[in-house]
Amino acid sequence: MARYEKQRNFLKSNFDEFKNIKTDKMNGIPKPASIKSYDSNSKIVILPKPSEKTVTNSNIYECIRKRRSTRFYAEKQMSLEELSYLLWATQGITGTNNAGLTLRTVPCSGATHSFETYLFIMGVDGIQKGVYRYLPEDHTLLFMFELDEMDNKVDEITLDQPFVPNFTKKAAVVFAWSTIPYRSEWKFDITAHKKILIDIGHVCQNLYLASESIGAGTCAIGIYDQKMVDNILRLDGDEEFIVYLAAVGKKQE
Amino acid sequence: MARYEKQRNFLKSNFDEFKNIKTDKMNGIPKPASIKSYDSNSKIVILPKPSEKTVTNSNIYECIRKRRSTRFYAEKQMSLEELSYLLWATQGITGTNNAGLTLRTVPCSGATHSFETYLFIMGVDGIQKGVYRYLPEDHTLLFMFELDEMDNKVDEITLDQPFVPNFTKKAAVVFAWSTIPYRSEWKFDITAHKKILIDIGHVCQNLYLASESIGAGTCAIGIYDQKMVDNILRLDGDEEFIVYLAAVGKKQE
Repeated sequence: MARYEKQRNFLKSNFDEFKNIKTDKMNGIPKPASIKSYDSNSKIVILPKPSEKTVTNSNIYECIRKRRSTRFYAEKQMSLEELSYLLWATQGITGTNNAGLTLRTVPCSGATHSFETYLFIMGVDGIQKGVYRYLPEDHTLLFMFELDEMDNKVDEITLDQPFVPNFTKKAAVVFAWSTIPYRSEWKFDITAHKKILIDIGHVCQNLYLASESIGAGTCAIGIYDQKMVDNILRLDGDEEFIVYLAAVGKKQE
Repeated sequence: MARYEKQRNFLKSNFDEFKNIKTDKMNGIPKPASIKSYDSNSKIVILPKPSEKTVTNSNIYECIRKRRSTRFYAEKQMSLEELSYLLWATQGITGTNNAGLTLRTVPCSGATHSFETYLFIMGVDGIQKGVYRYLPEDHTLLFMFELDEMDNKVDEITLDQPFVPNFTKKAAVVFAWSTIPYRSEWKFDITAHKKILIDIGHVCQNLYLASESIGAGTCAIGIYDQKMVDNILRLDGDEEFIVYLAAVGKKQE
């Protein structure tokens, strides 16, 4: 269909075009940092070590069978152990490869891991409300700032969801994943971008199943106010910007 | 970075642009078929009902922890029960919503489910080698055709993988997911395409975890010969084309 030609082409393998490209990696340009820097005086929250003990419904068959997008949450808060487990399940480091790149609980083309995980924490026991960033290398949280009227802002970012109005503001935590695309472009050039979107899908599916396994529910959000969320998270919208979000909360009994 | 501007923009939420668009759905154009038709005389393989009994490593925490892309496979064949379980875990129907749309083991924006699952079956007990399509509505396989030198063709499609040469031809089965993009464009217009890529990532992550749970391994393949695979599968490359592949085999002991 001609009217969507440009968009459809983006979904395809552009290997033929890629064959004639010299990537920045091939050109000897130094590899970009795989870790985003932060002020060493920042407040860091040590997360409990991810543990199987946090999992209450450990049967994978049942987690797959029961998976649903969940837009109603219990009032009850999540525990820090549960948040730790969800972060580990979505971006946790579980090894390194021969090239010294991190291997994680999710696959990522070329182990380029271009994502950063931001959290709007609204209801997690033992942790102050606010905006955080996950640091996978240390399995800790970087406290970024408090946000006035955070729940209303989350609601605005996620465009006041039409099916169940305002459900995101009732979540215990809202994940917002950014990409720093050059981490992947350096190696994959114009083939990077398709991979980035598929890879964030891998991440979010683990959030779905891991949530099921702790009696929580999630709902992914693909349509959101790009400028607003990037501004709030102080991302420049070019070298780093949000690509996907998901709200999480404990399920209603 | 200006040289990737077009590609980076594709990763962003284009809600602002979308607000001014009337979708085909809004314009009253009939919903496209959610099921791809096939000749009623086709050979159909009834799959065993997906069963928890097929799962040998049911602990979700362990499946997440052990997830790796696997490029070495045991000679041993997979069982039809295992294939049934993997198909169910990736595209199986587990309910319907109020609008009568299917809900599956994976989330999909707007429940548009634009994917079809094609299989290059090379080593599954009790089933003839060949090319098949999964029919989620009946949980059956449609036999499409035998393919001469299928393993070599799979190898060529997947571009003779550089890290572990020819691993895809040693797999028990290679999944090839197509999209029929209009199923999503009808509802989401220009916002459809980003969703399609994220959604196929959801699908493939379930393949990763479900494979771990049966002692199998998988490796996703994002770079492939688009024209060749579309031609072999008799897809027109416009209204339907392959977006992602994954090889699966039992793990070496």
